Amino acid sequence: MVNEEKYVEDITDQDDNFSKWYNQIVRKAELADYAPVRGCMIIRPYGYALWEHLQHTVDTRFKENDVENAYFPLLIPQSFLQKEAEHVEGFAPEVAWVTRGGGEELEEPLAIRPTSETIIGHSFSKWIQSYRDLPLIINQWANVMRWEKRTALFLRTSEFLWQEGHTAHRTLEEAEARTRLMLDVYRAVAEEDAAIPVIAGRKSENEKFAGALRTYSIEAMMGDGKALQSATSHNLGDNFARGFDIQYLDADSQRKYCYTTSWGMSTRMIGGLIMVHGDKSGLILPPRLAPYQVVIVPIWRKEKEREAVLDMVNRVEKMLKGKVRVKVDRSDNTPGWKYNEWEMRGVPVRMEIGPRDVQNNNVMLVRRDNRAKEPVPVEALETRLPELLEELQKALYQRALEFREQNTHTTESYDEFKEIIAEKRGFVRVKWAEDSAAETAIKEETKATLRVIPFDQPEGGVQGKCIYTGKPATCEAIFARSY
Amino acid sequence: MVNEEKYVEDITDQDDNFSKWYNQIVRKAELADYAPVRGCMIIRPYGYALWEHLQHTVDTRFKENDVENAYFPLLIPQSFLQKEAEHVEGFAPEVAWVTRGGGEELEEPLAIRPTSETIIGHSFSKWIQSYRDLPLIINQWANVMRWEKRTALFLRTSEFLWQEGHTAHRTLEEAEARTRLMLDVYRAVAEEDAAIPVIAGRKSENEKFAGALRTYSIEAMMGDGKALQSATSHNLGDNFARGFDIQYLDADSQRKYCYTTSWGMSTRMIGGLIMVHGDKSGLILPPRLAPYQVVIVPIWRKEKEREAVLDMVNRVEKMLKGKVRVKVDRSDNTPGWKYNEWEMRGVPVRMEIGPRDVQNNNVMLVRRDNRAKEPVPVEALETRLPELLEELQKALYQRALEFREQNTHTTESYDEFKEIIAEKRGFVRVKWAEDSAAETAIKEETKATLRVIPFDQPEGGVQGKCIYTGKPATCEAIFARSY
Ligand SMILES: [Zn+2]
Ligand SMILES: [Zn+2]
Repeated sequence: MVNEEKYVEDITDQDDNFSKWYNQIVRKAELADYAPVRGCMIIRPYGYALWEHLQHTVDTRFKENDVENAYFPLLIPQSFLQKEAEHVEGFAPEVAWVTRGGGEELEEPLAIRPTSETIIGHSFSKWIQSYRDLPLIINQWANVMRWEKRTALFLRTSEFLWQEGHTAHRTLEEAEARTRLMLDVYRAVAEEDAAIPVIAGRKSENEKFAGALRTYSIEAMMGDGKALQSATSHNLGDNFARGFDIQYLDADSQRKYCYTTSWGMSTRMIGGLIMVHGDKSGLILPPRLAPYQVVIVPIWRKEKEREAVLDMVNRVEKMLKGKVRVKVDRSDNTPGWKYNEWEMRGVPVRMEIGPRDVQNNNVMLVRRDNRAKEPVPVEALETRLPELLEELQKALYQRALEFREQNTHTTESYDEFKEIIAEKRGFVRVKWAEDSAAETAIKEETKATLRVIPFDQPEGGVQGKCIYTGKPATCEAIFARSY
Repeated sequence: MVNEEKYVEDITDQDDNFSKWYNQIVRKAELADYAPVRGCMIIRPYGYALWEHLQHTVDTRFKENDVENAYFPLLIPQSFLQKEAEHVEGFAPEVAWVTRGGGEELEEPLAIRPTSETIIGHSFSKWIQSYRDLPLIINQWANVMRWEKRTALFLRTSEFLWQEGHTAHRTLEEAEARTRLMLDVYRAVAEEDAAIPVIAGRKSENEKFAGALRTYSIEAMMGDGKALQSATSHNLGDNFARGFDIQYLDADSQRKYCYTTSWGMSTRMIGGLIMVHGDKSGLILPPRLAPYQVVIVPIWRKEKEREAVLDMVNRVEKMLKGKVRVKVDRSDNTPGWKYNEWEMRGVPVRMEIGPRDVQNNNVMLVRRDNRAKEPVPVEALETRLPELLEELQKALYQRALEFREQNTHTTESYDEFKEIIAEKRGFVRVKWAEDSAAETAIKEETKATLRVIPFDQPEGGVQGKCIYTGKPATCEAIFARSY
């Protein structure tokens, strides 16, 4: 039993050092590892299964919204990156370059895609001829690379996995509608599947995507009060269409430029759900995405109890197959060790089956979030277990929402603003008159950035003065330190 | 109607120029395109949907065989590639190198993975401690890169998509069993899902994987009689375990080297199914993998017929949703144009719905492979259509099998062997005494390579002499020109 206690003691307290807790949990739960290549990660089976469930829900929602998948090359000619001025400026410092291939120096260096707007723009210009070809709605699941100096598993690595959607439209209005539609898909994935409440809104000019007309994002509050940008959706206007000559022949026989969009969500979301739901015992995974939704721990003391317990375990496992994702821990470890292990790995529900349970034809269910215990007759499991998982899913969302509300502050004084950012954790919601220079100054003075201008604004408009410039406020904005 | 005939005329005759036919079909059917980066391809939505269905069946079969997915980095340090001597020799000429990142020259060049044995070997050495950690059975879905001089879409491109499985075992026997098991999974995917008959067997020393103890493969005959290696499975012995120090503490407290395997299947398989099933009108896709299994073509002449026809089309589409993958062609093209278009794109079954069908509450089904027509009452569709698709699936397999049998020759004379390779198409099955030099000589003299030594050998062993060396034959081997 010494071991079991030590197991939990080994986990750093979240309040002492949140990022140390995060790194420990990611590695202890075997979600991911650092690779022998600087800044790159290895996603281990348990972490990858989480990603697969996330991919599945995203991909399903995409297909319901007329998105088709395709695949574009990893390597992008240098000249392509240079065709859109802001884009090259934004990405050039982060690019990894291939300069040799097949034993020869290349004439033109090739970038490993940091994102694929340019090469997809090139394809769109060939595929789109007439207005009948529009809208074109394409998504790609891919790895991308952005050379990072400071890295953290899932949150910021030089290579990461993501999806990037790219669309072309006849009108700016249609492009805008698609941009907002996809942001809402991300909002639904975050809130309904990952149980992460998010604030959806627009990015400031300082924070928007390199080459975009407008960038929207969903922002979530992590367990330490910092913000995580969880997905973005960009209305690119006709910037890339002009750069890559994406034109169509309209019904009026005029050649016109398309309006394009792009939108992405990445393995970062996994970092998000770890930091939103985890507690001092480790991970808590939302049931809809958890690789295992239930772990069965068989319990016996005497050898003669063993067979009856394992019989029942097998029976229950079989009964639940295809309905709930079940893991049976048949290892030689003690039950106590298994409890700690699977709590640390965040399995939403533990099912204990011991000799007394066999006698009563009962099992004991234990929720990961609040440790509530519930004895359930075996014949009721098929209905009760999915129900319990849904309750837990909703409870996680609710808890995260309450945490965010408790840690969202408002103030009209910039001095208080600085105090909140320095001493408290969380979001600060302030009145704001959009101003790039003011935003930069705040970032330098406080390390807080303008995370998002929420869609949800006061009815009838904002009254009062901007917290920094004192000019008449045009909106409310959310500032926070961020990942 | 001129257009419609021209549509088909535009397709090169397979017998005149098979590779021209292939390239035309791939592009005309919008499966893939060449990328602006030399040797790389863009997989378009229709081709990618095919890949998704292939991935799905492979992944499902893997999971039934205890395979877990994970993800390893794209970039591999030069020093890693050099740790296994044969491996570096095999892959070095094909590697693309990253030499700059984040604005700086890298100290050590990084290879874009041509395959991941080395970096996964490194991980395994960290993950595996005890015999309790074995077997370790991991798969990765990824892009890989091998700089190719001569490329063909899907068949040989510098970047391609694949899965690579990697396992570690306690004994050589267990590694061998896993190698063979996974080859059999590939055989099942090829034969049952892609409707491609394959010959499973062992590769010669000349043709085995760089660093493997033994390589197994499945070989298929394309429509021009050439062979396509469709998947491979390698028993790596302890070569990589020694190179990467993959050791475990056994139950007897001794540290021992693991035995490892690797196995892969790629987007090449798509090239295979195009070349096996296609005909002079274009693609024929096996129903189990086809993006659309049925295309509905509405037919009307008079405007007043239109509404009734479209009502029935909508009703049938709704009825089949979730049961069969249906595409309704609602474009403005003529029915004749649509027939040609969807035949060229290989949709297994066409459903025609016209005014008379509305009256009779019937539809007309037309098979893509033999154009057989079958009127079916609407209420029978839900049962008849899946049945018909299965019949078609089996018929495609049967037809390909007969073609392979007709084009598989046997001879005991090397002169006749040369004649067959030069003048006929297909496989030549000969008596063989394994000899690397003889194999190299045959390749130089005839361009034919030893494709595979089939598992299926004559009962009681091979009698007679090797076709080239005259030594006592030890096996039968299959030679062919190949992709
Ligand atoms: Zn407050
Ligand atoms: Zn013959």
